[in-house]
Amino acid sequence: MIIRKPQDTPARNMDMPGASQVTMRLMVCWDDGAPNFAMRLFEVQPGGHTPRHRHNYEHEILIMQGQAAVGTSEDDSQDTTAQAGDVLFIPANQTHQFRNTGPEVLKFMCLVPTEFDCAGSTEPTPGSF
Amino acid sequence: MIIRKPQDTPARNMDMPGASQVTMRLMVCWDDGAPNFAMRLFEVQPGGHTPRHRHNYEHEILIMQGQAAVGTSEDDSQDTTAQAGDVLFIPANQTHQFRNTGPEVLKFMCLVPTEFDCAGSTEPTPGSF
Repeated sequence: MIIRKPQDTPARNMDMPGASQVTMRLMVCWDDGAPNFAMRLFEVQPGGHTPRHRHNYEHEILIMQGQAAVGTSEDDSQDTTAQAGDVLFIPANQTHQFRNTGPEVLKFMCLVPTEFDCAGSTEPTPGSF
Repeated sequence: MIIRKPQDTPARNMDMPGASQVTMRLMVCWDDGAPNFAMRLFEVQPGGHTPRHRHNYEHEILIMQGQAAVGTSEDDSQDTTAQAGDVLFIPANQTHQFRNTGPEVLKFMCLVPTEFDCAGSTEPTPGSF
């Protein structure tokens, strides 16, 4: 059994095009022996955002702190909102983006299956093999 | 995309032998179209506990609120503790139990793969098919 605290887990900058002021901590991943899915903690500074993108695998997300505008399509015409406590299921191939619209750090846990490659990249999805 | 709030999601009693004062909310599951893993919110009242059990699939867990004694073996000789913010990876076939040792409701998100049956049961794991 692994018990891990965020503050003891390295934060890496999300340097993907379209990301701004986002870090990610691999809380549970393939390298830990997780066979099916990986848990990653994202922290987005006020005004920051993840890329508006889509990929061929799903996300399951728990908003832990803060508030977000959530993009759901290629432009911002269908954006919605989410806040601490909310859970999101983003199916494969749905466009999505998280923008921190609040005064505090937006924190969310984002889970992915371990068997896919990152969107538009030859690199594995962080946390996968 | 699904955005779901815990308070809008039904809580069902965990009536498994060995459980006491535990409810579960299926936040994202197979019936939502989740193909690989399911996210379930457990709430344990003060003094309550989940079963001390093991099964042939893993858990990934985020403690959201409260504090817990965490069983890691068949008896309590190797129990440890976890609190809000901690993440746990419990590999397949490891014994585990969560006991609420604090004054507030213990809340944790527990994720499972969607393809396994529940421990010692012919019923599917809650959230699975």
